[in-house]
Parts: sequence; structure tokens; C-alpha cells
Amino acid sequence: MGTPGREGSVDVSRRNPIASWMCAMLYCFASYIMADVLLGESPLHYFNNTSHILLATAVWYLIFYCPLNLFYKCVAFMPVKLVLTAMKEVVRVRKISMGVIHAHHAYHHGWIIMALVGWAKGAGVALISNFEQLIRGVWKPETNEFLNMSFPTKASLVGAVIFTLQQARWLPISKHNIVFLFTIFMVVTKIFMTATHSHGSPFAPIEAFICPIVFGNACGIYDDHD
Amino acid sequence: MGTPGREGSVDVSRRNPIASWMCAMLYCFASYIMADVLLGESPLHYFNNTSHILLATAVWYLIFYCPLNLFYKCVAFMPVKLVLTAMKEVVRVRKISMGVIHAHHAYHHGWIIMALVGWAKGAGVALISNFEQLIRGVWKPETNEFLNMSFPTKASLVGAVIFTLQQARWLPISKHNIVFLFTIFMVVTKIFMTATHSHGSPFAPIEAFICPIVFGNACGIYDDHD
Amino acid sequence: MGTPGREGSVDVSRRNPIASWMCAMLYCFASYIMADVLLGESPLHYFNNTSHILLATAVWYLIFYCPLNLFYKCVAFMPVKLVLTAMKEVVRVRKISMGVIHAHHAYHHGWIIMALVGWAKGAGVALISNFEQLIRGVWKPETNEFLNMSFPTKASLVGAVIFTLQQARWLPISKHNIVFLFTIFMVVTKIFMTATHSHGSPFAPIEAFICPIVFGNACGIYDDHD
Repeated sequence: MGTPGREGSVDVSRRNPIASWMCAMLYCFASYIMADVLLGESPLHYFNNTSHILLATAVWYLIFYCPLNLFYKCVAFMPVKLVLTAMKEVVRVRKISMGVIHAHHAYHHGWIIMALVGWAKGAGVALISNFEQLIRGVWKPETNEFLNMSFPTKASLVGAVIFTLQQARWLPISKHNIVFLFTIFMVVTKIFMTATHSHGSPFAPIEAFICPIVFGNACGIYDDHD
Repeated sequence: MGTPGREGSVDVSRRNPIASWMCAMLYCFASYIMADVLLGESPLHYFNNTSHILLATAVWYLIFYCPLNLFYKCVAFMPVKLVLTAMKEVVRVRKISMGVIHAHHAYHHGWIIMALVGWAKGAGVALISNFEQLIRGVWKPETNEFLNMSFPTKASLVGAVIFTLQQARWLPISKHNIVFLFTIFMVVTKIFMTATHSHGSPFAPIEAFICPIVFGNACGIYDDHD
Repeated sequence: MGTPGREGSVDVSRRNPIASWMCAMLYCFASYIMADVLLGESPLHYFNNTSHILLATAVWYLIFYCPLNLFYKCVAFMPVKLVLTAMKEVVRVRKISMGVIHAHHAYHHGWIIMALVGWAKGAGVALISNFEQLIRGVWKPETNEFLNMSFPTKASLVGAVIFTLQQARWLPISKHNIVFLFTIFMVVTKIFMTATHSHGSPFAPIEAFICPIVFGNACGIYDDHD
């Protein structure tokens, strides 16, 4: 369950609860919606879990309409936030792994499909943020998550590729171990970044090394400074 | 069958008949397209009814290209318009009811899916108007039907929720009766609004009462004045 | 395989290889993606052909990152370009024909669906260019392929309608012959247009004759001059 505490959302929630609710649902379940769309299933498939939706609705209601903004303050309180961040990353890695397996069931040898669906599962809302913003009446076509990838998006892509390689039995390591190791990496990195308010990506040195060789230009540097 | 008599459409119809036809089809069948997409079926599914499409095409042709604009004048003539408005609302309520049943067949306990599909069936074109306008080369990201709901969109949402509750057997009333009562309500309200060129929503007093309690702010008031 | 040599793409490829790759894939396989979406299948369905994707990826890599821009210069060299253009049109006509047959399998009497899917197969990337540009951070809502159809888009529509009529057995000519004749027409026209850098559409005289009669205005003239 995400905690959308961005500017503008509060405005929308005051003016129009339904648009706010739709954004919150899209924010919480974007990864399921995207994976279902990419695999040709109903985008509303996940909404069959009525209890999950009601729980997310309760969280949404408490965050935006709780008297004195108490709930948001609790959630944004640093120690609580760190625990939630850690839990979010654990869920993210599990989602990526599930996405790869889900795609594997539909397309047994569609390695590229597996990686893309796993990526969509891990970085759901970031990849459709342009359209999530559109519901709130905001439209920023000049940027998107493909052009300026955040750390979780890049990490999800890396994770999806690794899990796909494991699924294809090209990695000499069991699924359980690789999920465990990747979860540790994600949780430690994200907690460190949240605690220090850092935006530097741990991938930056690797990119700075690989990009000039493969793509003839220091592409990674642009991503961070933009 | 809708009667799209908005400014801008005429321009497009003069300059590019194919874009105009696509807009008209999207306008007429948006509810079917949206419901099919939401339930993971082919967006063109409804276009299998070739005769319906040909009828809609004939209406589109007569509205835009009839000599002396005769057909549009007939349709926009107040008594005729009132009859068409009434028929449209009858069809709308039937569509909402069918949408809920359609979703019920796919997801037996997906109450939220039923309400959303019913809503999409009732308020189809309004909910995708941003993209319908895009085909005509118009793009208004700062507003959409979620942010500024018109009366039919709100009423469709209310209807979809009521029909879903009935489908879940939480309302002590038969399906036939509730569809009949809701149709009467819609027809009377919409005819009254069309005849008096009124834009005030009959939901306004209810919203003004409920919103401050539930959402801590007079959200309904913004909706009407924006 | 398309050869996207447009301005802006190079910039994106320097700054962000992943966005560039996604655009290239969308550009190459847009017709498959659109047809799959229109028929309610997974948009990633075609990505099951891993070898095709790897080939397209190799071409993309060579075009954008080949030292001295050698590969692009080869491809853009006029005689090579003419051969590639001819091959592209042969593939296009085959795609349209396949699209019509594919839709025929799903909807036996959905003549309109067949024509639309055939059109999408033939003019894939043009019809979703707005969204392909969006990935590159470019957004031009005031124009799209529906409003200003290029020659290949118009020809694809004509071809899709003709093949649908043939499929419906309303044309006294065999499928093989009509595909052959249409391929000849497309290849000759497109090679002529590429060789002379011409943008005049061979449909212009027909449009100038039909449009004033059917649509009461010289709509075709607008299309060419806009």
C-alpha cells in the first residue's frame, strides 16, 4: 500500500473525492493493473479482491480526511516511514518475482515478456504516472519515467531481468536465494536513501562505467542531474 | 445514439471526414468500448453489430453533411430534442443495468468491478472525453470528467452503485422495480434540465449536506461552479 | 523493420537508451501491438517471438550507436533506401491482408472490425504516433494521423477496405491476385515518392473529385496543405 503524500493530491482530495479515490487506487494497484493489461486480462481483475480495495480505501480516507491530519503525520513520522519503506520494498521484490512467474505461465519462452511484465509489476505507478496525473488534471508530457528513471524503476528493471534469467535457468542459483538477496539489497538501499534523503542512485557508478562503452556517451549522468 | 452538436466537431467534419467519423463512433459506442476494455475484451467487440454501426454512420452523415443542415435542425428542435433526451436516458439506465449484470457474469463477487463497469456503461463518453477530443486535435488536460462531474456522470455512478447493491441482494427491492424507478428519475430530471437549460444538479443539496461531514469540506460546491 | 531516422530520436538515444529502445520497439512492432489490442489480446503477444525482437534490437543498436554512424549512412544511401522501401511496402500489404484474416477468424461477420484491424496492421505506428512521441517526451495534441493522414495511412485504409470486401466475397477476384496487384501499386508509388522526395498523394485527384460531392467541401485539399 503506497502512501501518496505529494503536493496537489491534497487539493484534489478537497475538491473532488472521487478523482482523489481513483488516483489513490491507481497508485496502490498500478502494478496489478499494468501487468493485467500487458498480459491481455481485464484491467479491473485485481478489484475482484474486494477486501484489499476496502482496506486501501480506508487508508486513503484516513490519510486525506483524518481530523488534524493525524494519520498522515503518524505515517510520515520517520521511524514508522522507515518500517513502511522496508515493507514496501519487500512487497515490490515479491511482486516482480510473481510478475515474472505469471508471464511465464502465459508465455513459456517469452523471456522479453517476462522481463517487461516483471518490470511493470515492480515499477507500476511510475511507468503510468503521466496518466495517473492526468486524472488529477496535471499533464507533464515533457518528462516521464522512461526518460528520467528513478532508483526503484531502475532496480525493478534489473530485478526483472535477473529473475527472468533465473527462470530461464541461465543463473546457477535457486529462486529462493535470489529473491532473498535482491530483497536485502532493495531494503538496505531504500532505507539508507530514505533516512539520508539521498537521491543518488547506487547504479550511478556502474552506469558511468558501462554507458560510455556501450552507448558512446555518459548517458547515466544525464539521468541523475535532470 | 448521441447527437454531438458541439463546436469544433463541425470544423473537423469539414476538414477530415474520417477523424469526424471516428469521433462520432467513439461518442456513440464509448460505453460499450469502455465496458469491453474494462472487462478485458476486444475494444472493437461491439463493432461486430454491423447494422448498428451502419445506422450510427447514417445518423452521423445526416447530421454533418445533410443539405441546409436540415437533419440537425430537426433533431435540435426542442420537442424532438426532449423526446430524444428521454429515450437517451431510458437507454442509459438500461445500459448501466446491463453493465452490472455483464460484470456479474465475469466476476461473481466483484462488487467494485460491477459498480465501475456499470458506471462506465452509463457515462462512457464523458469518462474518455479527453481522448475523444484528442482525435479531433483538442487536448484539455487541466480538466476531465473525474474532476468536474456532470449530472449524467454522477447519476450513472449512483445508479451503478444502487444496481450493484441490488445485485448483491442488499436492497429489499426487485431488479425490475429499481430499474423502473431509476429510469423515471433520470427521464424527469433530464427533461426538466434540458427544457429549462438548467445546469444545477439535483444532487447538489445532498452533496452540500454530506460532503462537509464526510470529507471535511464543501466539495460539492466546487463541482458546480468550476 | 522500420528505420526511424527522425530528429529528436538521436537526442533521446544519447540521453536515455531505454526510452530509445522502447520507442524503437513500438515503432517496429506497432502494427502487431495495435492489432492485438484491438482484438483484445495481450499487447505483448508479439514479443513472444524473441528472435524477432533481438533482431530489431540489433538493428536499433547499429542505427543509433554504430561508430561513425556507418550503419545509418548505409541504410540512408539512396539505392539501399529504395530497396528497403520496396520491401517495407511488400511487408505492409502482407500485414494488412493478415490483419483482415486474423480479425475474420475472431469475428466471422465483423466486416467493420476486419477493415479497422487491417488498417491498424498497415498503418500501425502512424496511428499511435502521439503516444510513441510521448515516451520521448514530445506531445503534439493539435495534430495526429487521423487529422492529417499521410499516404501510407490512406493507402492502408483503402487496402484494408478492399481486402475486407474480397474476404466478404463481394469482389470477383481471388485473394492472391488482389494482394499482388495492391503490392505492385504500393511499391511503385512509394518508390516513386521516395526517389523524387514527393509528398503529393496519388489519391489527391480522386479525393478532390469525390469529397465535394459526398462531404460538400474540398476536404482532400486541406489534408495535403496542412
